[in-house]
Amino acid sequence: MTSSLVTGGRLTGLHELAGIGVDPVRGGYSRHLWQEPDLQMRAWFVQRAEALGLSVEHDRNGNIWAWLGEPGPDAVVTGSHLDSVPGGGEFDGPLGIVVALDAVARLQAAGSRLTRPLALVAFAEEEGSRFGIACMGSRLMTGELAPDRARALRDEDGVSFAEAAERVGFDARQIGRDDEALGRIGVFVEVHVEQGRGLIELGSPVAVASSIFAHGRWMLTFRGQGNHAGATAMGDRDDPMVAAARAVLEIEQAALAAGDARATVGRVSAVPGGTNVIASRVELSLDARAEEDADVRDLVADIARRVGASEFAEQSWSGAVRFDESVRDRLRMALGDVPVLPTGAGHDAGVLAGTVPTAMVFVRNPTGISHAPAEFAEAEDCLVGIDALVTVLEELQ
Amino acid sequence: MTSSLVTGGRLTGLHELAGIGVDPVRGGYSRHLWQEPDLQMRAWFVQRAEALGLSVEHDRNGNIWAWLGEPGPDAVVTGSHLDSVPGGGEFDGPLGIVVALDAVARLQAAGSRLTRPLALVAFAEEEGSRFGIACMGSRLMTGELAPDRARALRDEDGVSFAEAAERVGFDARQIGRDDEALGRIGVFVEVHVEQGRGLIELGSPVAVASSIFAHGRWMLTFRGQGNHAGATAMGDRDDPMVAAARAVLEIEQAALAAGDARATVGRVSAVPGGTNVIASRVELSLDARAEEDADVRDLVADIARRVGASEFAEQSWSGAVRFDESVRDRLRMALGDVPVLPTGAGHDAGVLAGTVPTAMVFVRNPTGISHAPAEFAEAEDCLVGIDALVTVLEELQ
Repeated sequence: MTSSLVTGGRLTGLHELAGIGVDPVRGGYSRHLWQEPDLQMRAWFVQRAEALGLSVEHDRNGNIWAWLGEPGPDAVVTGSHLDSVPGGGEFDGPLGIVVALDAVARLQAAGSRLTRPLALVAFAEEEGSRFGIACMGSRLMTGELAPDRARALRDEDGVSFAEAAERVGFDARQIGRDDEALGRIGVFVEVHVEQGRGLIELGSPVAVASSIFAHGRWMLTFRGQGNHAGATAMGDRDDPMVAAARAVLEIEQAALAAGDARATVGRVSAVPGGTNVIASRVELSLDARAEEDADVRDLVADIARRVGASEFAEQSWSGAVRFDESVRDRLRMALGDVPVLPTGAGHDAGVLAGTVPTAMVFVRNPTGISHAPAEFAEAEDCLVGIDALVTVLEELQ
Repeated sequence: MTSSLVTGGRLTGLHELAGIGVDPVRGGYSRHLWQEPDLQMRAWFVQRAEALGLSVEHDRNGNIWAWLGEPGPDAVVTGSHLDSVPGGGEFDGPLGIVVALDAVARLQAAGSRLTRPLALVAFAEEEGSRFGIACMGSRLMTGELAPDRARALRDEDGVSFAEAAERVGFDARQIGRDDEALGRIGVFVEVHVEQGRGLIELGSPVAVASSIFAHGRWMLTFRGQGNHAGATAMGDRDDPMVAAARAVLEIEQAALAAGDARATVGRVSAVPGGTNVIASRVELSLDARAEEDADVRDLVADIARRVGASEFAEQSWSGAVRFDESVRDRLRMALGDVPVLPTGAGHDAGVLAGTVPTAMVFVRNPTGISHAPAEFAEAEDCLVGIDALVTVLEELQ
C-alpha cells in the first residue's frame, strides 16, 4: 500500500500538485482564490474524489464537498484547504486534502463498514491572500462573515469578490450562512502540517490540537509631509518612513515583553513610493496573536501607545478557540497517547469549532518554518498522518 | 500683457495643463514617460510651440525641440521637462516649459531682434519615474547613458523601454549620443521651481544656481527567514522587516551626523508581503546627496557600516555639478544681483553642464515642498520668472 502513496519522496497527491502555482519571484507557491492555480487545484481535487467514487458538491460559499455514499446528517467530515499564502509552502492546506483522499482509499481498500456518512471538504480562501480575510469559505458558511461585506472586498488589482466570482461563473448572490451544509456535519477533523517547532521538540510525528491562539489584524497608517529627497534638509523633514520604522521596532519590543505573544509586520507600503521622494504616507500591517483574547487586546493596546500611528484600524478579530475536549481525548487515546499542542495559526477547523465538534491532527514539520518555501514534512511522517486519520475516521464511527 | 499670462490665479499654460495626469490615489500628478498623461503633455507643448510659429523637431532620444527661425549652431536654448514623479506637484518641470513659451511670446510681441538661434526643449523622463533613471532624455543625448542599458530598463509592469517605445511609435534603435543636437546648443538655461526653502529665507522671488549636489541611488536588500506569523515564537525569528526598520533609523542618523547631507528611504517592499507571513526579504531604496562627491561617498560608506544589509547595490551616480561661472555671473548681473543658490535636486541642466555652458534660474516656492502636491509658486513670482528669462535671453544675444 505504502509504495503507491509515495512518488519521488512525496505523498503522490503532493507530487501531482507540485507544478501548480509555482511562484518564480517569491519562491514556493502562490495559489489564490479563483486565479488559475487555484482553479487547477480545485479541478485536481474534484477529479481525485470522483476517481474514488465520491460524489462532488459545490456549496454556496465556494467550498467543495466530496461524499462517500449519501450526504449527512451527523457526518464525519475531514479536509482542509487548497489555497496558499503568497510564496507559501506545499503542505499548508493541501496536506490535509491529500491525506483525506488517501485515508478514504485505505478505508475502501480495507472494506471498512462505515455507519456514519463521510465527507471530504476543501475550504475556499483559507489564507485570505486574495481578499484579505482568512477562512472566507468557512466564515461565510457559519455566518461569521457578512455576505455584503464579502462581496465588496477587493483584491490588489481592485477586483471585487463579486466580480472575481462572476469571472469564474460563481454566483456571489448566494453566499452566506449555510445551515444545510452545517447541519450535516457531525464532527470535523482537519489534518494539517505543524507550523511551529512543537513536534520537533517533542520528538513525535503527530499531535492533536488543544487550542488556537486569539488573533487579529490591524492596519497602521503613518502620515507625514511628502517632499523632495534632494532639496529637503534633514531638519526640515516630516518623514513617515522614519515613524513607521520606529513602529516596527516598538512592535517587536512589545511582543517580546508580552510573554508568548506574537506580533508581525509582514506588509508595508510607502506612498507615493518614489526613490527621490520623501513619502507622504506609510502603511504597515500588524498581525498579533496570543493564547488568550485578553493578552492580544493588551498587546495591541501597548503597541498603539508606543507607536502613535495616524490611524490604527482593526481589520479582523478571531477569539481564542478551544477544540472539543471529548473528541480530542478520543483521538488522543486512539492514536496512542500522542501529544496535545496549541497553535498560533488560524484554521477553518477553528472557525467551525464554534458550531460543531471539531478536532485537528498536526504532522511534524522538521524545519519549523511555514508560510514559506522551506515548510516541510517527511513523507514518513505524512504516512503516519494518513494512518492517524484512518484510525480517527474509524474511531469516530 | 500680464493679464493674458494668468488664468484662474495660475500661469495660463499651467492652467491648461491642470487636468492632465491628476492622480486620484496619491494626490497631485502622475505623468510618466509615454503613458497617456505624458503624451497629452507633449501634444500640448507641440501645439503651443506651433501656435507661436516655432518649428517642432523630435530628436533621437525622445526630447522635443521647438525652434524660432533656423536651428543652430550656437543657439540659446531654454526648457525643462513635462513628466512628474508619482503624485508630484504641478510646477516641477512644466513651469520651465510654460515660462519659456511665454518668454518667446514676449520677445516676439516686443519685436526683439535675435542674433543667435533660439530653441525651446522638453526633455524626456527627467524624473525617472517610469524606468528608474533620472534625466534619461538628456543622459542619452550626451551619451552618459548607454543605449543598450536604456533599452533594457523595465517599468513596474515589466515593460521594457524598447517595448514602451514601440507602443507609441518611437524607434528605440536610434537612441544614443546625439552630437548634432548637442552641437547646436551654444548655451542652455533652465527655469525651475525651487525645491527647498532657500528663496523663502532670502526673501527673493528668483535666484540663479551655483551648483547641484552630488547624488546617488542604491538598493539595499535585507534577507531573513520567511515564516508563519502566528506559529513562530518571537525568539525563533529572523525577520528582515526588523533589520530594515533599524536601517531606516540608522540612515537618518548617519545623514544628520554628516552635516548638510541628505539620505532618504522613499520606497520599500517586503517579499512575499502577506499580513500573516514573516517576510523573507525586504528591499529599501536609498537616495543620498551632498554638496561634494566625497561627502556622499563618505555618508554611504557610513550607512553601509551601520546597516549590515545582505546586499547594497549602487543604481546610479551623478557627481556634483558646478554651473558655468561666466554665464551665471552674466545672468546674475542682468537680473539685478539676485541670490545664488546650490540645489540638492538633479536637473537636465546638470547633465548638460558637462558638455555645454549651462545655467539655471529658480522661482520661489513658498511651501518649500516639492515632489508632492503641496509644491507651489505664486503667479506673481512666476511672472518675475518670465521677466527674468526674457532678460536672460536678450542678455545672451
